[in-house]
Amino acid sequence: MARTIGSHGPKTMEAIRKAGLRLIFEHGYAAMSLRQLAAEVGIQSGSLYNHISTKQELLFDLVRDHINELLRQLDRALQGKQRPADKLRAFVAFHVTYHMTKKREVFIANSELRSLEPKNYEEIVALRGAYEQRLAAILTEGVAEGEFEVVDVQVATFAILALLTGLTTWYRPGGRLTKEAIVAAHEKLVLSSVAPTGTADRASQCAPSPRSGLARR
Amino acid sequence: MARTIGSHGPKTMEAIRKAGLRLIFEHGYAAMSLRQLAAEVGIQSGSLYNHISTKQELLFDLVRDHINELLRQLDRALQGKQRPADKLRAFVAFHVTYHMTKKREVFIANSELRSLEPKNYEEIVALRGAYEQRLAAILTEGVAEGEFEVVDVQVATFAILALLTGLTTWYRPGGRLTKEAIVAAHEKLVLSSVAPTGTADRASQCAPSPRSGLARR
Repeated sequence: MARTIGSHGPKTMEAIRKAGLRLIFEHGYAAMSLRQLAAEVGIQSGSLYNHISTKQELLFDLVRDHINELLRQLDRALQGKQRPADKLRAFVAFHVTYHMTKKREVFIANSELRSLEPKNYEEIVALRGAYEQRLAAILTEGVAEGEFEVVDVQVATFAILALLTGLTTWYRPGGRLTKEAIVAAHEKLVLSSVAPTGTADRASQCAPSPRSGLARR
Repeated sequence: MARTIGSHGPKTMEAIRKAGLRLIFEHGYAAMSLRQLAAEVGIQSGSLYNHISTKQELLFDLVRDHINELLRQLDRALQGKQRPADKLRAFVAFHVTYHMTKKREVFIANSELRSLEPKNYEEIVALRGAYEQRLAAILTEGVAEGEFEVVDVQVATFAILALLTGLTTWYRPGGRLTKEAIVAAHEKLVLSSVAPTGTADRASQCAPSPRSGLARR
């Protein structure tokens, strides 16, 4: 289909994306019709096709762009960090701060994976895997250097990501805690969660730290 | 509407619940029609009304029963546990094990809160709050006794629940790890996450533990 985007094209496309995000968030992908989307944007249904080919394409673009942006900004946040603990702290601060403003994107990226066509699903899962891999690499490095102790790097990776992303279900701007306090609360939880257990055990507190034998069981 | 449930009533109701759970999980609440539900169960649309009045009632029942069962079984799992660390360990083991078999229920309880009518929404949020409160009480007790250190009990409660529930997004029976290994991996993460930082900090490992000043900032 020929696209006839005029000077208002990018602006309209942005409005379509915003409206799509809201409608999918509120009603679900399957329940959103393109007619409803056009009405929400304030254009004719026919005009919608100047900007998007299908509903599927819109969903895929929304989820893909969200994860690509996550990856891009994460790599910037990790730049220059050397020690695994510093990298993990930077990861936590970035992920928490970024997700404070992405409630809808996160909800859709999780709840509408089911609605992606197989090829799109594969691509999103691969992108998400790349993001998960950044965290897994930090944990693996920390375990190798004896700084971290985890029972299983993969389980820890998924668990820490779930912990951090959980705030999208309750965070509201202007709530009881400052953004800084919320980041600090998550940093404490995550940094401690991978700390060697020997050091957290009061009974053996002054014994020599077991630097080896802490890796994956 | 008069209900004319015969001897097959309970069996049919169970089939309706199962089919409803699957359809909402796969397509979303808004996209599921009662006609579709009846077809899935293998009964006439009209017969559906012998068992449920509305689609809303079905969604509400599914979510409410899920959380009530969680509460009931959690209280049994916590029985006889005295120390906060033992309670927390029991909480983790219960929550992880229970959720291994409740992927669909958890997904719906989270993703379809938006679809509950206000009165039903309030009731579910209150029930969920009661479950969260069990964990918050364990953390509060642990902090008061100097066993735990968290920056904020409420944030820690939400974060730990998100961490534990995260496994519903990746767990598959028969995977790489045994159930016991998965529980152990979560126990390590959660128990460590609330450990006092003084003990996890190698530099101050042999200093006296700061028993006070660990509470909510």
